[in-house]
Amino acid sequence: MKLTNKNMCSVIDGINLDSILKKSVKEAVSLNRESLDESYVAEPKPFKQVSELVSQKTKDMHHGLYKNYVESLNAVSSKLDTADRSESNPRHSDFKSLKLDEAYNLNAVWLHELYFANCFDPHSEIVMDSKSYLRLQRDFGTFDAWQKDFMATAMAAGNGWAVCGYHTFLRRYVNMIVSHHSGDVMMGVFPVVVVDMWEHSYVKDYLSDKKSYLVSRMKEFNWNIIEERVERAEQIAQAVKA
Amino acid sequence: MKLTNKNMCSVIDGINLDSILKKSVKEAVSLNRESLDESYVAEPKPFKQVSELVSQKTKDMHHGLYKNYVESLNAVSSKLDTADRSESNPRHSDFKSLKLDEAYNLNAVWLHELYFANCFDPHSEIVMDSKSYLRLQRDFGTFDAWQKDFMATAMAAGNGWAVCGYHTFLRRYVNMIVSHHSGDVMMGVFPVVVVDMWEHSYVKDYLSDKKSYLVSRMKEFNWNIIEERVERAEQIAQAVKA
Amino acid sequence: MKLTNKNMCSVIDGINLDSILKKSVKEAVSLNRESLDESYVAEPKPFKQVSELVSQKTKDMHHGLYKNYVESLNAVSSKLDTADRSESNPRHSDFKSLKLDEAYNLNAVWLHELYFANCFDPHSEIVMDSKSYLRLQRDFGTFDAWQKDFMATAMAAGNGWAVCGYHTFLRRYVNMIVSHHSGDVMMGVFPVVVVDMWEHSYVKDYLSDKKSYLVSRMKEFNWNIIEERVERAEQIAQAVKA
Amino acid sequence: MKLTNKNMCSVIDGINLDSILKKSVKEAVSLNRESLDESYVAEPKPFKQVSELVSQKTKDMHHGLYKNYVESLNAVSSKLDTADRSESNPRHSDFKSLKLDEAYNLNAVWLHELYFANCFDPHSEIVMDSKSYLRLQRDFGTFDAWQKDFMATAMAAGNGWAVCGYHTFLRRYVNMIVSHHSGDVMMGVFPVVVVDMWEHSYVKDYLSDKKSYLVSRMKEFNWNIIEERVERAEQIAQAVKA
Repeated sequence: MKLTNKNMCSVIDGINLDSILKKSVKEAVSLNRESLDESYVAEPKPFKQVSELVSQKTKDMHHGLYKNYVESLNAVSSKLDTADRSESNPRHSDFKSLKLDEAYNLNAVWLHELYFANCFDPHSEIVMDSKSYLRLQRDFGTFDAWQKDFMATAMAAGNGWAVCGYHTFLRRYVNMIVSHHSGDVMMGVFPVVVVDMWEHSYVKDYLSDKKSYLVSRMKEFNWNIIEERVERAEQIAQAVKA
Repeated sequence: MKLTNKNMCSVIDGINLDSILKKSVKEAVSLNRESLDESYVAEPKPFKQVSELVSQKTKDMHHGLYKNYVESLNAVSSKLDTADRSESNPRHSDFKSLKLDEAYNLNAVWLHELYFANCFDPHSEIVMDSKSYLRLQRDFGTFDAWQKDFMATAMAAGNGWAVCGYHTFLRRYVNMIVSHHSGDVMMGVFPVVVVDMWEHSYVKDYLSDKKSYLVSRMKEFNWNIIEERVERAEQIAQAVKA
Repeated sequence: MKLTNKNMCSVIDGINLDSILKKSVKEAVSLNRESLDESYVAEPKPFKQVSELVSQKTKDMHHGLYKNYVESLNAVSSKLDTADRSESNPRHSDFKSLKLDEAYNLNAVWLHELYFANCFDPHSEIVMDSKSYLRLQRDFGTFDAWQKDFMATAMAAGNGWAVCGYHTFLRRYVNMIVSHHSGDVMMGVFPVVVVDMWEHSYVKDYLSDKKSYLVSRMKEFNWNIIEERVERAEQIAQAVKA
Repeated sequence: MKLTNKNMCSVIDGINLDSILKKSVKEAVSLNRESLDESYVAEPKPFKQVSELVSQKTKDMHHGLYKNYVESLNAVSSKLDTADRSESNPRHSDFKSLKLDEAYNLNAVWLHELYFANCFDPHSEIVMDSKSYLRLQRDFGTFDAWQKDFMATAMAAGNGWAVCGYHTFLRRYVNMIVSHHSGDVMMGVFPVVVVDMWEHSYVKDYLSDKKSYLVSRMKEFNWNIIEERVERAEQIAQAVKA
């Protein structure tokens, strides 16, 4: 069954698709719903943040900030369901503000979850024939070169994040700055290593010595969790090959 | 072979990994190099931009702008290879400026390539049992609802982009604004539909009537190319499932 | 009559200032209201944009865009009067979105008015003993050096503005980029020369040749209007001297 | 002595002004150099930060951060003197990066100086017939209303600043967010009250309770210093009247 473009553009032309047609297609194809609900209601997850190099006060504060983002994301997501799309414009419209806040809070939630999971392993250990080690070595020349580049990336982020991930266009791992939560972001990167470089992450314990904070987190990278992400990235790499 | 963390952090501790160890690992594991070179040298690709709804002057100008981004990306990428990482900081450092320019130009190149490929098919036609149709229907309720949301997203982007892609955290398709080339970006989205909403895309032909421009591009969506991307996104979806 | 700080902080401490006290002060001091209304209702002004180097279509479009900003500013300003300030936060709140839109639209309105007024004089002529000439010469070494710096500034602005103004902290004239309408802005600059470098200003007439557009505007600078602004800047300079 | 526009545009047309002409003008007019040097070399100033509500560690760290900005500003300013202006573009050029860093660091230096000076007076006291009080009352309805609005503005700033200043276009006082150091900035505002809302200002002492931090700073506003600024703003107000 084909639709010419004219029929398809029902929103554009103000004509609705024949609802019977739609129904028949819907029944013909079983839709395994694997996505979250449209208005994704997120729940804050517990994270242990095991480390003696970060104070309990920082850990508690940090989890509280994360919960605020989850709450804001839910509020934004819910409002987006019914936001007026007809008057959308870049100068001033609810829809625009909601979309910007959506990207901001969604990234904030995800980045915090990635960070809490990959930065708090006091028994950190990397295996040299792990995929993580080999892929970073492959794409940065040596594992050390990756570390240097990652540290420089983290030190360059003001209030923001250092992220290492698989770039689905370049088909290699890259290190990137994320400014705040949604600025200066490389598109299409599947994240595998994340360090929070916002000041709230380190000022209580390290004052302005963010390098010591960064080293403390890199020393406690949970390479098991990173390896799981790299395994997924491997499959993504297969998927995006030409 | 395991490395304790202490040994691993050779950059951090200023100790280099034993080069013999490294060599043996390297030889033991065959490295199929599937990534681009470290300093990815991009080549501008030809794009036909077949359409009677966009003038030749705009097409030529647009391809020229894209080539400028390719050129800038190559310059940035090359400089990053040897940039001093030791003094990296967010206030003023070559490394910081290069990383921001890298994200900016890399996104610009990729987005333009996606746009030229998916926006210029005068014989645009969507099949209702295509994956594209079904997935957008699944995640937005109806295909029309997706179109409405995509249009509102595009209209909210000032100088920037409207992007529909598969979100690897939400595990669903989303519409997002990209401000300029790297602002307000949702992380981890694999793009499938892209429309350029920078003023250079439409001012010559449509003046400030960006809605007509947008509709003209949506009427010429190349659903065959979008379908190929959605096929890849399907595999990515498999890869990121818990 | 003095208020100790404790009494003053009535909002903070939840105690209102004695209303009789307030009234008496109000009566005692004649308030010459020189400011605009709280919710500043702006009116779009007419601008002739006399020039043969910019097409009528561009002029009309441009004035239309300016009117949109005036309209948006009025909407934002009006909503700010009654916006809930109690739940203000940077993640997601009406007040935050309104404040960002306020800066965006207010700058857009002002910058357009400055631009329309100073960029459309086909009989452009500068007098070498004018304050404009002498001050730019003083602060940039030569008038030519100022021109070069201003052009480089304009060429560096993507979608944004080139602004020359008197910096009340540096106590000299500076050239600055304004990204979009409110990004990368130097604080405390009183603007005297403004060129719009958004793509809508030149794409219709000059395609991507923004240098030719820029030169065309600089050739039609209205130095009489700029001189009036510089005269005011002179007085500002007096006011901010230590 | 008049120059027609053709002669004036010596940079544009590649013709240099007659140097003898220039010299005679220069001699005829005594140039009282009141501006800073072209490459403004700033010196970090001492600030006492007298307060029992902010820890010594925070004070020391904060002054150190300020000194870093001064150092960066000097580096940027010096490089700008000789930066290549001929290849300036928004994608990737030294001049562009330097101009953005200039705005960032210059604002950072100034804002910190304003903040250190106006936020650390344990004997804070406002006089109800002071210009500060009366002007804020005039422009916000009541002094309390100003306080509420200022607090909401500060709470809406993520990592950034809350600034109250005299707006030379609106001819009234406004409260504004400054994101980071140079984002979302209203143009043409002469600042009179400044509070640092970056996390480094409060996380050590107040964790994420930024409201308590904000109140602590507002309780220690140095209204004498603010009054001096308002006096200057009064003169600026006179200067910009139509």
